[in-house]
Amino acid sequence: MEEKLKIFKEKMSDIVYLSQAAAVLGWDQNTYMPVGGAESRGNQLAVLSRVAHEWSVAPEMGKLLEELTEYAKELDPDSDDARLIKLAKHEFDVEVRLPSEFVVETAQVTTLAFNGWVEARQKSDFSIFQPHLEKIVDLSQRFAAFYPEFDHPYDALLDQYEPGMKTADVKAIFNTLRPQQVELIRKIAEKPVIDDSFLHQPFDEQKQWDFGVEVVTRFGYDWKRGRQDKAPHPFSINFGMDDVRITTRVYPDFLNPMLFGTMHETGHAMYEQGVSRALIGTPLARGASLAIHESQSRMWENLVGRSLPFWKFFYPRLQEVFPQLSPISLEKFYRGINKVNPSLIRVEADEATYNMHIMLRLELEIAMIEGKVAIKDMPAAWNAKVEEYLGITPQNDAEGVLQDVHWSYGNMGYFSTYALGNLVSAQLWEKIGSEMSDLEDQISAGNFEGLLGWLRTNIHQHGKKFEPQELVQRVTGSKITPEPYMRYLNKKFGEVYDL
Amino acid sequence: MEEKLKIFKEKMSDIVYLSQAAAVLGWDQNTYMPVGGAESRGNQLAVLSRVAHEWSVAPEMGKLLEELTEYAKELDPDSDDARLIKLAKHEFDVEVRLPSEFVVETAQVTTLAFNGWVEARQKSDFSIFQPHLEKIVDLSQRFAAFYPEFDHPYDALLDQYEPGMKTADVKAIFNTLRPQQVELIRKIAEKPVIDDSFLHQPFDEQKQWDFGVEVVTRFGYDWKRGRQDKAPHPFSINFGMDDVRITTRVYPDFLNPMLFGTMHETGHAMYEQGVSRALIGTPLARGASLAIHESQSRMWENLVGRSLPFWKFFYPRLQEVFPQLSPISLEKFYRGINKVNPSLIRVEADEATYNMHIMLRLELEIAMIEGKVAIKDMPAAWNAKVEEYLGITPQNDAEGVLQDVHWSYGNMGYFSTYALGNLVSAQLWEKIGSEMSDLEDQISAGNFEGLLGWLRTNIHQHGKKFEPQELVQRVTGSKITPEPYMRYLNKKFGEVYDL
Repeated sequence: MEEKLKIFKEKMSDIVYLSQAAAVLGWDQNTYMPVGGAESRGNQLAVLSRVAHEWSVAPEMGKLLEELTEYAKELDPDSDDARLIKLAKHEFDVEVRLPSEFVVETAQVTTLAFNGWVEARQKSDFSIFQPHLEKIVDLSQRFAAFYPEFDHPYDALLDQYEPGMKTADVKAIFNTLRPQQVELIRKIAEKPVIDDSFLHQPFDEQKQWDFGVEVVTRFGYDWKRGRQDKAPHPFSINFGMDDVRITTRVYPDFLNPMLFGTMHETGHAMYEQGVSRALIGTPLARGASLAIHESQSRMWENLVGRSLPFWKFFYPRLQEVFPQLSPISLEKFYRGINKVNPSLIRVEADEATYNMHIMLRLELEIAMIEGKVAIKDMPAAWNAKVEEYLGITPQNDAEGVLQDVHWSYGNMGYFSTYALGNLVSAQLWEKIGSEMSDLEDQISAGNFEGLLGWLRTNIHQHGKKFEPQELVQRVTGSKITPEPYMRYLNKKFGEVYDL
Repeated sequence: MEEKLKIFKEKMSDIVYLSQAAAVLGWDQNTYMPVGGAESRGNQLAVLSRVAHEWSVAPEMGKLLEELTEYAKELDPDSDDARLIKLAKHEFDVEVRLPSEFVVETAQVTTLAFNGWVEARQKSDFSIFQPHLEKIVDLSQRFAAFYPEFDHPYDALLDQYEPGMKTADVKAIFNTLRPQQVELIRKIAEKPVIDDSFLHQPFDEQKQWDFGVEVVTRFGYDWKRGRQDKAPHPFSINFGMDDVRITTRVYPDFLNPMLFGTMHETGHAMYEQGVSRALIGTPLARGASLAIHESQSRMWENLVGRSLPFWKFFYPRLQEVFPQLSPISLEKFYRGINKVNPSLIRVEADEATYNMHIMLRLELEIAMIEGKVAIKDMPAAWNAKVEEYLGITPQNDAEGVLQDVHWSYGNMGYFSTYALGNLVSAQLWEKIGSEMSDLEDQISAGNFEGLLGWLRTNIHQHGKKFEPQELVQRVTGSKITPEPYMRYLNKKFGEVYDL
C-alpha cells in the first residue's frame, strides 16, 4: 500500500505541476500578453486543461483512490496523507463527471471571453462582452446539470469555491447581515460627509509603487519567492509555494487602488507562501477555500491596512514620500480612508458598503443561472440592483456590469466568498486579539511578525487540509457567523462617525 | 487517408501548443521569475517535456507517419502537406530513440543549470556552474550515443539545430573562412585605432529603450503580435506566430547592446511573424534552421543596422534623442559603430572578429564532447583560445567562459549556426541587391517595406518547409558558402579603414 501511495502522489504531483504551468500562462495573459496572442493562448490552455482532466479522471486514478480510501481509514484522520486522500477522492468524484470536451470548451470560451471583456470594458460597451457571457452562463448551467444531487444548480457552482457551503446557507447568513449593514449605512448617511479629497490628487506612480512595496515587505511578503507586476484587474497567483506573485494597479491621481489593492493581494500571497513545505506538490498546497483566502486578503487590507495603529506607524512615512499630505493630520487621514460612501466599483468600496456589492452579484448570478434574466438585459438589471442597494446609478457599463473580470474567467458562484471572507477575517481577528493582548501595539510599531506568525500557525500551514467551516470551527470555536464582523463594523464606524 | 491526415494534424497541433506553453514558461524564467521559482519551474517543464515527448513517439503516431509517408508520395513534393509529413517523420525517427526518462532528466538538469549559470555569472565564479556543465556535457554525450550512425558524436548535436549539416562541413567552411578573416583583422590592426568613445557615455535608459522601439517599429515588427521585455541574455521566442516576443538589455553608459541587440532579436521575431498562416499549429511554423534564423537577425543587426544608409536616416533622430552626440558627424559615428577591436564578449563583437568567437566555441565544444578537456579546466582552456584567436585575455570568468547562456540550456552544437548565419545573410544580401537596385536608397529613406517584403516572400513565409541548404540553394542558386560574406567584409572594412 505504501507503494500505491507513492504512485498516487507522483500522479497527483504531475497534475499539480501541469496546473501550475497553466497558471503561468494565465498570469502572462493577464499582465503582458499582446492581443494577438489570445487565440493560441486559448489553444495552449485547452491542451493543458485536457491533459490535467484526463489524468485526474483516469480509471487507474479512480482505482487507486478506491483502495487508498480504504487504507486511509487506518490512518490518523488529521494526518496529511489521510486528508490528501480524502480531498483527492472528493475532487475525483466531482471531476470524473465532466466530459473532456466540456473541459476543453470551457478553456477555449473563457480565453476568448477574457479578451472580449478587456475590449468591452475599455470601450464601456457590454454588447462586445454579451455573446461571451451568454456562452459562459450556458457552460455554467451545463456544469451544474452534471451534479443533479444538489438542491439548487447554483450550489454546484458555489461548491467549487467553498466546499460544503450551500446557497441556502449563504442566503441565511446574508439575510442576518443585510438589515444590520443597511442600518449602519443609514446611520452613517445622517452624519456629515467626511472629506477625503486629499486622496484624490496627483501622486507620482513610481513613488506609489515603491511605497506599496515597502509596506508589504514589512508585512513579511517574501520577494525571493514572488514578485509584483501591473494588471488591469489585480490578482495573486501561485506557481508553487516558492513563486507566489502579486499584481497591482496604480492610478496617477488616487492613492487607494494601489495602497489597499497591494495589501489585499499580499494577504492572499502570504497565505500561499506560508503553507507547510510537507505539502509541496500536492493539491493540499493551496488555500482552504476562497472565503478563507479572502479572510487573509481582507484582514491585511482592512483590519490591518485601514486601522489607526497601522497608520500611526506608516503615516509619517507616507507623508515623507508625498509631502502634499503634510497638512493632513493622522486622524483626518484615517477618517478619509474609512469614509463610507456608496460607490459603483466593488474593489474601491468601503467596508460598510462592500458586502452590498456582493449581495447584488449573488442575486444576479442566481437569476442568470435560473434563466430569469436575459443576458442582454444584464446592464439594466445590474443598474437597478445598484440603485436599490446603494442608491446610486452607473453611468456606463464599465462602471456597472463590466467592472469585474470574474465572469470572463467562467467564475460563476465566486462572489459570495468575498463577503464570507470579510466575516471570517473578523472572527479570526477577535480570536487573535484574545490571544495577543498587545496586537495593536505591535502594529503601531510596524511589527507584523506576531500577526503573521499566528496566521502561519493557525491558518496558513494547513493549506487545504481542512474544509473551510471545519477550519474556522477549529480555530475560533464556531462556524462562519456574521456577528464578529458586525461588532467590528459597528465599533469602528461608531468611532469614525461618532455614531 | 484524408481522415488520417486530419487526425495526424490534430495530434501534431496538440504537441505544438504544448511546446508553446513550455515556451511561455521559458520566457518567464528568463525575464521575470523570482529565484525561488526555479525548482517548481523545473518540475513544470519536466512534466510538459515528458508529455510532448510521449505524444511525439506514441506508437500510434509512428503508425500514422508510416502510412502518411506512403500517401505523401502521391502529393506535390513541395506542398505543405508533403513537407509536413516529411519533417514529422524525420523528427519522429530522431525522437523515438530518446527514452522518456532522458527527456525528463534533461529538462530538470537544464532548469537548475540556468539558475546556476545566472548566479555563477553574477559572482563571476565558474565553480558554481561547473557541476551543472558537467551534467550537461554528460547528457550531450549520452544524447549523441543514441545516434551511432553519425561519423562523429558532435554531428548528432549539430543536426538538431542545422538539419543535414555535418561537423566536417562546418570545419571545411571555417577552414576557408579563418585565414581570410585573420588576414583582414591583421590588415586592420595596422591602421590607426578608431575613436568610438562617444558610444561609451551616459545614455538615459528609457530613451535608449524608446529609440530601439522606434527603430524596430519602422522595420515592421508587429507589436500587436509581440512585445519587448528586458532579459540578462536577450532572446526572441514565439508562442505561436501571433505572439512572437523580443527581449533586450540596456546599459546606462554604452549604446551598442540595446541598439544592435534590439535589431538582432527583431530580425528573429519578424521571421516568425512572417510565416504563412497556412502553417499555424504545425511544426513547419518556425524558422528553417538556426543558421537561417541567424541570417535574419544578423542581416537586420549588421547589413542594415550597421550600414551607412541606415544611419543616414536614423542618425539625425538619434542626435535629437541624445544631444550629446551632436558634435559627432555621421561619418565618425558610422566608423565608430564599425570599429574593429578584438574583444572578450561575443555579443558585443564587431563583424570582422565575430566569427573568431564562434570558431573557438566550436573547438571547445568538440573537445568537451570528445572528453579531451576536463570541465574544471574550461576557464583556462577558454582563455587560452581567446588569446590564440584574438590576442587578448579575459580577466574573470564572467567575461570568459561564463558569458553565454547557451550551455545552461543544454544547447551543445548550437554556436556554429551563428557564423553560418553570417554567411547566409551576405549570400541573401547579394541576391536582394541584384533584384532591388534601389535597396540602399530605400534604407536611406527609412523605408524597409521592400526589404521585409522580399524576405517575407523568399524566406519567411516558407517557415520550416525546406531544409536550410535547400532553401539557400533555391533562393540564391548555391549552398552555404563563405565568399559573399568575405566580399562584404572586405568591401565594408576596406572603406571604413581605408585598406
